[in-house]
Amino acid sequence: MSRKLVLLRHGQSQWNLDNRFTGWVDVDLTDKGRTEAFAAGELMREEGLQFDVAYTSVLLRAIRTLNIALDAMEQQWIPVLKSWRLNERHYGALQGLNKAETTAKHGEEQVTIWRRSYDIPPPPMDESDPGHPRKERRYAEVDYNALPDTESLKTTLDRVMPYWVDRIAPDLKAGKTVLVTAHGNSLRALYKYLNKVPDEEIVKLNIPTGIPLLFELNDDLGVISYRYLGDPEQARLAAEAVANQARKS
Amino acid sequence: MSRKLVLLRHGQSQWNLDNRFTGWVDVDLTDKGRTEAFAAGELMREEGLQFDVAYTSVLLRAIRTLNIALDAMEQQWIPVLKSWRLNERHYGALQGLNKAETTAKHGEEQVTIWRRSYDIPPPPMDESDPGHPRKERRYAEVDYNALPDTESLKTTLDRVMPYWVDRIAPDLKAGKTVLVTAHGNSLRALYKYLNKVPDEEIVKLNIPTGIPLLFELNDDLGVISYRYLGDPEQARLAAEAVANQARKS
Repeated sequence: MSRKLVLLRHGQSQWNLDNRFTGWVDVDLTDKGRTEAFAAGELMREEGLQFDVAYTSVLLRAIRTLNIALDAMEQQWIPVLKSWRLNERHYGALQGLNKAETTAKHGEEQVTIWRRSYDIPPPPMDESDPGHPRKERRYAEVDYNALPDTESLKTTLDRVMPYWVDRIAPDLKAGKTVLVTAHGNSLRALYKYLNKVPDEEIVKLNIPTGIPLLFELNDDLGVISYRYLGDPEQARLAAEAVANQARKS
Repeated sequence: MSRKLVLLRHGQSQWNLDNRFTGWVDVDLTDKGRTEAFAAGELMREEGLQFDVAYTSVLLRAIRTLNIALDAMEQQWIPVLKSWRLNERHYGALQGLNKAETTAKHGEEQVTIWRRSYDIPPPPMDESDPGHPRKERRYAEVDYNALPDTESLKTTLDRVMPYWVDRIAPDLKAGKTVLVTAHGNSLRALYKYLNKVPDEEIVKLNIPTGIPLLFELNDDLGVISYRYLGDPEQARLAAEAVANQARKS
């Protein structure tokens, strides 16, 4: 029996548009992001995907992307599970800064290191910052010491993977068709694991927004095949647009 | 410690507007229904309610009401659990019929008996009906014999209450603030239980759409107080409008 898993990165958010480091800041989708989410749902509907369960983060842009995609598929009734473990990478003290300003201040080289190195985190967010996760009600049930004040891609992966092992993988093993709607870096964690991508390669991978990535997995959750739904050229262009984001003026 | 529970009945659906028996048919909200849902969320936000968990049915009009209300409260991130046990009463062979037509065919007295008696169900839906729950993927995991082909108010209550006991009550006992967004008859079940309403009285109770009903409960989940949020006159008028629905031409 083959099992189906779809990874979907949320559509454009207001801060993607403003070119600011978002991380765990809870910004909403733009109108374009909503359109992307609906189009993603249409692609999954056309593929005939019938989901048994969906997973998402506790951040609005991923939750809204999921809700809109479920609308497009008329599958709003499926169980939806949300976890902080699927959140975007925490960008520490960079959160809220315009990326171009950050580049001007710290230099493109340093910013590229923070964005694209595997294990070097940005400076931590100050614990007095009102946006610190330890101050937010939505994280109140999470072990205080497990909540990050900054993350590298490596530490992001380290907190995503237990959720895969404990929650998502068992559903797939049970034969369920699973949708995960999340963020660029939390989805990199799953992509890296499934496709056995080396550390130095995963930093270069850009998952396009709003384009469902369909995996077919065997009984041991090994990858049989994977592909973006819809037009492959559109997926390539969307990935390129993400890669160019830090270099925009 | 007092515990808070809010019951919220979904806003106007397309079939409420068309005056048809809806039951388990999965119709969407009208624009008015969406406006009601948002206003309900605003009332809960103004009340300062911070929910820990929300429950809803597997029917779109309740799910969408919940999602819109969570938008209004900016609490989209809370866990949401959906169950067929919170569905509207199944109206058997009446589902899909215009209420005025049904009245013309069966007589107002018979229709009133079906709508307002405690334990007399309408004629069952034929198992060959494409809308039968046993044919729908969303009920595939429910014990075949537990799925109704018609329900009285009594049998509706009988399938709602195990969900209260097993899922909702433990959350309240644990001190959580709980939102239940559901339907006229599934909410009657909870109202009857909490307020110890006799069988012959509960059939006369009309819970208004889109107006949050806030209960404060003691440690044993006994009722300390309950009230509709917002303008009491508006709640009374809304309940009256629901009561008059079957008599509309």
